[in-house]
Amino acid sequence: MQIPSDINGLYTDFYELTMAQGYFSCGKKDQQVSFDYYFRTNPYKSGFTVFAGLYDFVDLLKGFSYSESDIEFLAQKGLDPKFLDYLRNFRFSGTIYSVREGEIVFPNEPLARVEGNIIECQLIESLLLNILNFESLIATKAFRIKLASGNKFFADFGLRRAQGLGSLHASRAACIGGAGATSNVLAAKLFDIPVSGTMAHSWVQSFDSELDAFRAYAKTHPDTTIFLVDTYDTLRSGVPNAIIVGKELAEKGKQLKAIRLDSGDLAYLSKKARKMLDNAGLADVQIIASNQLNEYVIKTLLKDQNAAIDSFGIGTEMITGKDNAALDGVYKLTEIDGEPKMKFSENIEKVTLPGKKQLVRYFDEEGKFYRDGILLFDENPGENECIYHPVYPEKNTNLTGLKKELLFSKVFENGKSLLENISPLEIHAFLETRAALLPEEHKRFISPHIYKVGISNKLMQTRNHLSAMLKTKH
Amino acid sequence: MQIPSDINGLYTDFYELTMAQGYFSCGKKDQQVSFDYYFRTNPYKSGFTVFAGLYDFVDLLKGFSYSESDIEFLAQKGLDPKFLDYLRNFRFSGTIYSVREGEIVFPNEPLARVEGNIIECQLIESLLLNILNFESLIATKAFRIKLASGNKFFADFGLRRAQGLGSLHASRAACIGGAGATSNVLAAKLFDIPVSGTMAHSWVQSFDSELDAFRAYAKTHPDTTIFLVDTYDTLRSGVPNAIIVGKELAEKGKQLKAIRLDSGDLAYLSKKARKMLDNAGLADVQIIASNQLNEYVIKTLLKDQNAAIDSFGIGTEMITGKDNAALDGVYKLTEIDGEPKMKFSENIEKVTLPGKKQLVRYFDEEGKFYRDGILLFDENPGENECIYHPVYPEKNTNLTGLKKELLFSKVFENGKSLLENISPLEIHAFLETRAALLPEEHKRFISPHIYKVGISNKLMQTRNHLSAMLKTKH
Repeated sequence: MQIPSDINGLYTDFYELTMAQGYFSCGKKDQQVSFDYYFRTNPYKSGFTVFAGLYDFVDLLKGFSYSESDIEFLAQKGLDPKFLDYLRNFRFSGTIYSVREGEIVFPNEPLARVEGNIIECQLIESLLLNILNFESLIATKAFRIKLASGNKFFADFGLRRAQGLGSLHASRAACIGGAGATSNVLAAKLFDIPVSGTMAHSWVQSFDSELDAFRAYAKTHPDTTIFLVDTYDTLRSGVPNAIIVGKELAEKGKQLKAIRLDSGDLAYLSKKARKMLDNAGLADVQIIASNQLNEYVIKTLLKDQNAAIDSFGIGTEMITGKDNAALDGVYKLTEIDGEPKMKFSENIEKVTLPGKKQLVRYFDEEGKFYRDGILLFDENPGENECIYHPVYPEKNTNLTGLKKELLFSKVFENGKSLLENISPLEIHAFLETRAALLPEEHKRFISPHIYKVGISNKLMQTRNHLSAMLKTKH
Repeated sequence: MQIPSDINGLYTDFYELTMAQGYFSCGKKDQQVSFDYYFRTNPYKSGFTVFAGLYDFVDLLKGFSYSESDIEFLAQKGLDPKFLDYLRNFRFSGTIYSVREGEIVFPNEPLARVEGNIIECQLIESLLLNILNFESLIATKAFRIKLASGNKFFADFGLRRAQGLGSLHASRAACIGGAGATSNVLAAKLFDIPVSGTMAHSWVQSFDSELDAFRAYAKTHPDTTIFLVDTYDTLRSGVPNAIIVGKELAEKGKQLKAIRLDSGDLAYLSKKARKMLDNAGLADVQIIASNQLNEYVIKTLLKDQNAAIDSFGIGTEMITGKDNAALDGVYKLTEIDGEPKMKFSENIEKVTLPGKKQLVRYFDEEGKFYRDGILLFDENPGENECIYHPVYPEKNTNLTGLKKELLFSKVFENGKSLLENISPLEIHAFLETRAALLPEEHKRFISPHIYKVGISNKLMQTRNHLSAMLKTKH
């Protein structure tokens, strides 16, 4: 399954191609390099980020090649015929190590390591960033909504407000983060997500009366009946009509599943509607709420106002990752032919960490996440028992004896994905097991505690040595 | 050209399908209906919106059908076999009228009118909203950047931070709004947009020194040389090395095109770099700036600080439409079998306007945009010489004798698009002709003047009559 089938080697920034041609022309094409993917800031002022998009990225890599029509297009753009000959047979043949999809991750730690020749590693940069940045952004938003909703069910209703075809990966990422279903039917089919949806206002308007509209829907969908009750007047028309048809269904041994509130004050209306339904003997009918929801609105509805809402439909804010719009993930060169490389900056926090690396998670005595450590890839984590603050080495932590996990595994090799295609709901289940190990103080919305990520002594020495050299040279 | 080829009739919200099945089952499938597309709020607190996405929407409509595999998927989701038989041969056969792509438009006026049977008009809702909302959002952002940059060139560099595959239509919309090029090679090919891009920091890092890196790039790309000068130290290393290689190029009769600043204080660095280049006899070398730019930053760089910047590369904020993330466009039923319909609301501003409508623009004596009027589709605009505020009818404007234009034209009929495939740059040229007619007070960023959109007397009567009836009924 490749989505969409048009995405290929042209899904890249033009400078990746001009650089690749440059590497080709000056004889560097077989240089072996390594790049790191990481981001600098958690979105939404969150205390953590949910890593997502890995399967899609690796899946799209398989189609990352150039057709004759693509080659012709690039020739028109002035690329060199010899280099274009090289591109004709191009396939990514490198190796990718990565954190598992659905993992809880933190700023400035490597989440994926891409190894291969300099051309292939350069060309896939934009695809990697495009997919991993976006799905991680949305999965994080969705998981925040899950935290706010206290495990109540919520569905993705965002297609109409999504950023174009970004809707597809967004619906998948929303499900990784905790949405139990999507309204986007194509996303549901492509990614194996449950679908959700019943009626819009236009259904109700298309009948002479709301009651007719509800009766017609109940007749044509007797087993999946949910009524949208705010087309005319929620409490004076919608809920009373829903009750009438709910009772009629009950007489036939069927069950009105729910009503949906889509405007007005959801706390007030839900409590009133709950009472009306209960008084009518329809205590099993659920109340679904939608309309401009996000984690903050949901939290106040449930915690401060005791809204009688059983589940939520979430649109714009989840599908677009509002208020962030993007995760600031970057892809940085760390090694060429075994030599560590870095980007120097006057600002030590922006200096990149050189060399091929691994990521290790340490657990406290209760088995909770305690620290993450960034080590050189060939260090034995058992021998590295101290990690250092990347900027202030006097801040360091001795980790002797703590349980640890290596977070990287190989996910792509020899042109083949090593990943199983597991459904977003299964990835979400993994996320839940990890989130259970994340101390609560990192999960709160206001000023979450900062999770500490350190570097090994060897990595620090490598960086300081290179940094000093670069400073002398330039 | 269909992008991407997987987008089909499943690109819809599930409730469109459950409603469509309902219409089918209760014998309403041949009812003729009309829907309006409009939005309620200009994004970015702008005084206007740029309408975009029309060609892409209509183009995707052609592929809006269901394969056997889709039918099977829908059967698994519980849809009725008889309805699925109907879907097997489904094609949108209705008629669409629309404002032209690139037009300047305003809140609450219909931008497109979709006519056909109730099933086809319902099923395409999500696709229409998804594409038109998003491209209009991005085109508007890009045009604001154009206004801020005073017609300086800018390119879209947003692929890595775009919302997944949303990048494709976003790059097109950015170009409609004013971007002169994109870094996204696939978007450039699919939509006929110029490409742009030269080197990243990784190019510079991959050589032993910055000077080597610049020389190698100049050698392999002698006619399109642009140096990224901030890998190590902009003023102490990047610009001096660019000057060395710029002079070497000049000796060979070649020309260093530009340097690019991608970090630090762009005002300060650009002015310093400009002096250094000028003093070295390289006055023709341009300065490109990138890094977290938006219309506000560009405006202050150019107007308040006289930054010596010739062109811009714009990433995250343009490609995601930050800070808005979505345009709030909606699609509302307005007529069934010749009978006007509306959604009632206690809040008169949210009452929808019933009936099939047309949109007329009136011009003042100087030929500038003066008012837009929403009329019933069968009114003769020559006979309607007064438009009314939709909520306060005592506010009205006599338009006798003013020049006017009908903004709707037919864009889809009998299964065929009537649109020419013109390039985004050509659409932008049309936008420029329209923006020239928009009075300046609607273009400012802070508290722009509100452009007035009124309704005809006949439309107001129709709405008031229906509203009174609905109020009695429910």
